[in-house]
Amino acid sequence: MKSYQTALVTSLLFGSLSACQTKIEIPAKNDIAVQLQQTALGSTLGYDIVESLTVEVGPRLAGSPKDAIAVDWAMKKLTSLGFDKVYKEPVQVPIWERGEAKAKIVSPVEQPLVITALGGSVATPEGGLKAQIARFDSLAALQSANPVDVKGKIAFIDQKTERHITGEGYGKSVGGRSKGAVVAAQKGAVAVVIRSIGTDHDRMAHTGVMRYQEDTPKIPAAAMSNPDADLVYAMLKRDPNAVLELHLTPKDLGFNTSYNVIAEVTGSSKPNEIVLIGAHLDSWDEGTGAIDDGAGVAIVTAAAKHIQDLPQKPARTVRVVLYAAEEVGLVGGKAYAKAHKDELALHYIAAESDFGAGPIYQIDTRVNDAVFTQVKDAISPMLLNGVALGNNLASGGPDVSMLPALGVPVASLRQDGHDYFDYHHTPNDTLDKIDPKALAQNVAAYAQFAYIMANANVTLRPIVVDSKH
Amino acid sequence: MKSYQTALVTSLLFGSLSACQTKIEIPAKNDIAVQLQQTALGSTLGYDIVESLTVEVGPRLAGSPKDAIAVDWAMKKLTSLGFDKVYKEPVQVPIWERGEAKAKIVSPVEQPLVITALGGSVATPEGGLKAQIARFDSLAALQSANPVDVKGKIAFIDQKTERHITGEGYGKSVGGRSKGAVVAAQKGAVAVVIRSIGTDHDRMAHTGVMRYQEDTPKIPAAAMSNPDADLVYAMLKRDPNAVLELHLTPKDLGFNTSYNVIAEVTGSSKPNEIVLIGAHLDSWDEGTGAIDDGAGVAIVTAAAKHIQDLPQKPARTVRVVLYAAEEVGLVGGKAYAKAHKDELALHYIAAESDFGAGPIYQIDTRVNDAVFTQVKDAISPMLLNGVALGNNLASGGPDVSMLPALGVPVASLRQDGHDYFDYHHTPNDTLDKIDPKALAQNVAAYAQFAYIMANANVTLRPIVVDSKH
Repeated sequence: MKSYQTALVTSLLFGSLSACQTKIEIPAKNDIAVQLQQTALGSTLGYDIVESLTVEVGPRLAGSPKDAIAVDWAMKKLTSLGFDKVYKEPVQVPIWERGEAKAKIVSPVEQPLVITALGGSVATPEGGLKAQIARFDSLAALQSANPVDVKGKIAFIDQKTERHITGEGYGKSVGGRSKGAVVAAQKGAVAVVIRSIGTDHDRMAHTGVMRYQEDTPKIPAAAMSNPDADLVYAMLKRDPNAVLELHLTPKDLGFNTSYNVIAEVTGSSKPNEIVLIGAHLDSWDEGTGAIDDGAGVAIVTAAAKHIQDLPQKPARTVRVVLYAAEEVGLVGGKAYAKAHKDELALHYIAAESDFGAGPIYQIDTRVNDAVFTQVKDAISPMLLNGVALGNNLASGGPDVSMLPALGVPVASLRQDGHDYFDYHHTPNDTLDKIDPKALAQNVAAYAQFAYIMANANVTLRPIVVDSKH
Repeated sequence: MKSYQTALVTSLLFGSLSACQTKIEIPAKNDIAVQLQQTALGSTLGYDIVESLTVEVGPRLAGSPKDAIAVDWAMKKLTSLGFDKVYKEPVQVPIWERGEAKAKIVSPVEQPLVITALGGSVATPEGGLKAQIARFDSLAALQSANPVDVKGKIAFIDQKTERHITGEGYGKSVGGRSKGAVVAAQKGAVAVVIRSIGTDHDRMAHTGVMRYQEDTPKIPAAAMSNPDADLVYAMLKRDPNAVLELHLTPKDLGFNTSYNVIAEVTGSSKPNEIVLIGAHLDSWDEGTGAIDDGAGVAIVTAAAKHIQDLPQKPARTVRVVLYAAEEVGLVGGKAYAKAHKDELALHYIAAESDFGAGPIYQIDTRVNDAVFTQVKDAISPMLLNGVALGNNLASGGPDVSMLPALGVPVASLRQDGHDYFDYHHTPNDTLDKIDPKALAQNVAAYAQFAYIMANANVTLRPIVVDSKH
């Protein structure tokens, strides 16, 4: 029982009330899952991996030279860890270069602003552009605006992002980033600038992908830091005719070949059945991609390595997929689903880690409702690691989000993301934002999940796909 | 007694243990000091002033066009507040333009770094410079280095700044910033780069003034953010021959005329005697100068305004001095001491607010030791505002720090600066970092201090000047 006690102490350290409130009965057959937790919590492997990726590669924007260096890094790292199989699969990814982003209020008084181009934005005209500002509280407010009030102006979507443990706040405000340029252009705006989709008060702008639409003019799109958005708002209260100047020089450079990088622990008795744990290898270009998604790369890689090192491999194959080009539109995830179309029926369950390195407090699944209780029973050793057993409405993470519609069961290991959107998509996404202890708890959770699922005797299909999820 | 009770509640809200542990007996004659506290805590004037300065002026580097705008702003603001006198005194200030600052590790792998030029630095040669890195734990380590290990390299002073409520941590590490270029050049370095003198983990570099020496070559000097310093250190552990590339384009543009801006509440019976409360009007150029030193400007201005508005003015004149060009070498403070040489004997006491907007927890003085107890008794109403009565070793703040040697008593109203060096001298020095309640507590403290000192019947001179202080 010694290891159980240690595990319980660790669970309490991570402070999961849910775990404490539940009566925990761990079947004896799950000893190995509990051992995996101990191994993971006692290892620095996860942290070592994200340290290596952020120091030896750093920023790795899809299609850039650093993306290729990241793929090489991943192939070497996975090979050096001794996985049964390591390979890569080509993915065509768009190349977008950030260039420079400068902005200032030029009237009534000059005030330099900290901005960044949104991913995919076109450049401003040669010499930049100057225009008055049409401010809106939200994308919805812009959508219902009279075009007369927007035409010829820079639309400013000034919505604050709420802080939550989940992505709820992000979900509420991110539409301004992804759709703002289209809606603003339809109203006649010459550019769109948003308050950063971020919960911090740092003078850093949050980038992230935006989209254009075929029938709508492509206008430049940028985000300003929260303090700068406060400043612009304060200026507009003094002078509604305040003028903003924007210079953006991003470039669209076509397509390049990148790769989904894959490693496997071959299953001992059902090697053709797959438990997929993924993360994305690419990152935005301004930080070193530590929490997004170096952490995920480290978590799933270290988790699989701990399974690789077991004396007895689980029945099914555990497949680590490090996806290409997630940030610019789930490109690697979609490519994987297409390339593995004929094998998806053999995917037992899939999960992606892509929400930083905060501790996992809950696991949700999307399995056949009839076996949900059985699945919860099977994964109950995760309670000792502070992971509560949640609902059956999971979507599984961005790069596996298309799999449920293709019949594949998924799980979402919910991380505490209360500070994730402080750093997300900014220059501040660096190694120091990762707590090694919390990262190890994540590794433990993924190791337990993957191991238990790779051995489970439960038929998870068919699943119900709810269009809301 | 009503106002006393309210004051006590407020004091407890600010949580000063020192105040609670001291038996507080407020002489009845100090009713007005207690009323001033209530007025200040119930007013938004201080916050309104710093909001106005940061929005309507923003960054105001000494000698720049924005510095002139700041002087105009100050003259108008002080005039609009109805002070008895408002005037300005010319000060010759150096003009230094930041230009651009770029850096990256180019070998063994390219990694962009966030850096900023130190104030006063020369530019790198046309096209930048590339060199290996000689890393040192501290300025002292660089001082004792063998020149062979530094010659031709970029000296990297990698000392972390400790977090304290006072400036103690800053004091320990700032020598690397101010003296690093001289010491590095003496060892043959081609440039010096320091880990930012800052307690944060943000991807922001902290600027601040540095000095050259006549007999030593002027080499470029920059600071990198803490996460970048971590990265460089991690890179050097992998490859001691890692190469750094630096591009700095600052310019030295001679001198310009700026101004110390001054307002006065004329004393009712001893108008020629001065209680000076100061702050500096200039700021670094990357933030909006909110905590450094918009807060100080707001605190002393609002404090004096509350005294101006009293039905009965205190005996001595309360003089607000908004100093020019503090950041680039206490230029306004030195100019004031020189211009007012013949009036210094009439300066009863002086204090400067230049440590952000954290609540004041203690007041120290530098008065004649024989009257220290009397002075503490006089200022005891400040206890109700959470301000403990401290020691008699104050230096008074940067721009008045030369006054004790000239015989002028000073006071230091100690602010909680535990997070001051998270933002100090970075783009993050913006309005949102100021807590309006803490700012109002500062205003109350300065109003009480200035009022009580302007009425006090204590001879504060002569003072002992300790070379350590």
